[in-house]
Amino acid sequence: MTLDTLPTLDARQLERTALVRAFTAPKGFGDQTLRDRRADAIELLGGIPDPAVLPAHELADATARVLAQPGLPALQYSRTEGIPALREWIAAREGVPASRILVTNGGFHGLALAIQTTVERGDLVAVDNPIFPLFLRGLELSDARILPVRVGPHGLDVDELGAVLRGGARPAALYTVPDFHNPTQGSLSLEGRRELVRLAEHYGFVVFADNPYRELRFAGGVPEEEPFNHSERVIHVNTFTKTLGPGLRLGWLVLPESLVPDVVAVRSRQDSHSSTFVQAVVAELLTHDAGLFDATLDRARALYGSRARTLAEAIDREAPGEFEVEVPTGGLFLWPRLRDARVDADRLAADASTEGVEYQRGSFFPSGPGTDADRRLRLAFGDTTEDRLAEAATRLARALRRQRE
Amino acid sequence: MTLDTLPTLDARQLERTALVRAFTAPKGFGDQTLRDRRADAIELLGGIPDPAVLPAHELADATARVLAQPGLPALQYSRTEGIPALREWIAAREGVPASRILVTNGGFHGLALAIQTTVERGDLVAVDNPIFPLFLRGLELSDARILPVRVGPHGLDVDELGAVLRGGARPAALYTVPDFHNPTQGSLSLEGRRELVRLAEHYGFVVFADNPYRELRFAGGVPEEEPFNHSERVIHVNTFTKTLGPGLRLGWLVLPESLVPDVVAVRSRQDSHSSTFVQAVVAELLTHDAGLFDATLDRARALYGSRARTLAEAIDREAPGEFEVEVPTGGLFLWPRLRDARVDADRLAADASTEGVEYQRGSFFPSGPGTDADRRLRLAFGDTTEDRLAEAATRLARALRRQRE
Repeated sequence: MTLDTLPTLDARQLERTALVRAFTAPKGFGDQTLRDRRADAIELLGGIPDPAVLPAHELADATARVLAQPGLPALQYSRTEGIPALREWIAAREGVPASRILVTNGGFHGLALAIQTTVERGDLVAVDNPIFPLFLRGLELSDARILPVRVGPHGLDVDELGAVLRGGARPAALYTVPDFHNPTQGSLSLEGRRELVRLAEHYGFVVFADNPYRELRFAGGVPEEEPFNHSERVIHVNTFTKTLGPGLRLGWLVLPESLVPDVVAVRSRQDSHSSTFVQAVVAELLTHDAGLFDATLDRARALYGSRARTLAEAIDREAPGEFEVEVPTGGLFLWPRLRDARVDADRLAADASTEGVEYQRGSFFPSGPGTDADRRLRLAFGDTTEDRLAEAATRLARALRRQRE
Repeated sequence: MTLDTLPTLDARQLERTALVRAFTAPKGFGDQTLRDRRADAIELLGGIPDPAVLPAHELADATARVLAQPGLPALQYSRTEGIPALREWIAAREGVPASRILVTNGGFHGLALAIQTTVERGDLVAVDNPIFPLFLRGLELSDARILPVRVGPHGLDVDELGAVLRGGARPAALYTVPDFHNPTQGSLSLEGRRELVRLAEHYGFVVFADNPYRELRFAGGVPEEEPFNHSERVIHVNTFTKTLGPGLRLGWLVLPESLVPDVVAVRSRQDSHSSTFVQAVVAELLTHDAGLFDATLDRARALYGSRARTLAEAIDREAPGEFEVEVPTGGLFLWPRLRDARVDADRLAADASTEGVEYQRGSFFPSGPGTDADRRLRLAFGDTTEDRLAEAATRLARALRRQRE
């Protein structure tokens, strides 16, 4: 019997790996099938920076300089950890040695590397509740079980976490967004950070501190102390996504020294290293004019702070008394709460879509029971002009009136 | 007892995940500790393209155009699969629908995604023998067992593979470099490719066809048929690394339609998508001037072909009768064989380093027994001028004479 006459063995269909089988289809947040929107819809969906405050010309100029360098180092292979010029700039800003910086393809990539390095399959991982939902998709890389921990007005409720740990819970890791929490907008205090680090060091878990919005504070300077950069139990995750543009796909981890070799080992078996080209262009951008990054941030903070106030005021004006709206002190989101329990929040989101305004409904964000997230709306204002934000509030109010009629 | 008075639980040291524990330290190829070289050493180590044939000016111009586009799409999020303009250009070149193209951060990244999607932990994977050694590091992502298959003068020995399969071996996947094999330089014929696809479809394994050197043929045109692009059992892996520059970190997979959702699922949980910026710049480069890519290839082929001949001739001239040298028909490597069994190949590599020429010794490349690789040298000529290649041959001959004295 020759090969050609043998029947194909149907039993040997391609099987998906256990890794892939653990993945679930996106529900709610990230589910593209929910999107059937008006052509003129105002999208308040994602934390997207406004092109107006991204340094496009300066990036083009930096690229021209980088591509004029003899030997074209920007087009060649480079080390898994990242190129020295970029690691050193980041390290100086973080106040740590450059040896602790690993350059990533953005914040989410940093989280994925942290998960694959430290979370064993089936491990328990404590997480924000409510949570940035995409982290739970990343966690499927380790098929982990989750332990939701309440997020209060000042970020993660470290007291509740302490109680849960004293009660015997033993997570391998904890995930939180410490500054301008996504979606709840609070920030963890210095004392809260210190206590979280103490708990991590005592109970032996790793903190994934995911900090993409840190630089987008509308007032005040950099906190003088960052406990997350000074513990063997914290992986501090950051990115240029919200400041220089998501499309660069460039971020970094501040790693405990002891974890650097393992993260490098994972990374070197996946995509080797982040684009030397992107790293070289951004390093040139940041070092050619030492004031450029802060000037860029100043413009961004002024723009986003103004948009946050505009949207909050417009909601109060267009739908008086309907929402409890707190103007955030940084970041890219409003998280207003419906005052009237009789309003159907899911119907509101559907009616808002019909009226031409799209947002993420609060019910997409809980990681467990006990939150008021389903009474809230996450409104992203980063890439929408103030005129359009005011129009969005008008449309939202119109959607709300549909339930009043 | 308060937290501060409790001893830290030493038992809860950070444990490495099973993923990380499966990783082995690099031995031989890729082991940086072997490198203790002369300042003026000539490095024939890696398949590195010459900066002179990378389109640096054109990339800078493309970047300027891309960063002048309204709304700056190049700096924003994009789909996991890749941006349409780039996928469509690649798809047209591969002769497949754009829906089958997934943009990656280079060829190795494509292999890593293929492994994570289709190779279960502990699975058997058939591999080239000799092999591009870094693939075995990628395979550690699945802690796979390997089944070495002989590589002959025309690439993978498909007849031997067939015999092994008929004998009962049931690999989940097979890895080969079909064109200008690394390191042995042969290319798999059309009939060999067809037979390999038949075996994969019959026995139900996935072929990882890793094809970074395909475009670097020194003579002749594109083969009229590519069986690897027309089977549900082949993942065809490619990259711009050898043609536009490794530092871009930009490559692609030609995937079977049925595997696209699973690879997207893995990828979207790691770094979301390749840099929109790099994709947009390269898509602009390739589409703004439709002849640019082929013109770039023509220059590269002429340069590398000339360097291959120069190095082969210099070796014959400087060390007459010592090596069996075949001038390759493409790619970036020479793979000469020592004729005299009394020459100690490891000592030769050490002496060559002392004389100031560095290369990868052939003994780094076997994946199993039965090859003559330990009698060979892998000499990379891509980024070394002809003067320096001639000097490298002189130094190599000098190293050889040290064993003759």
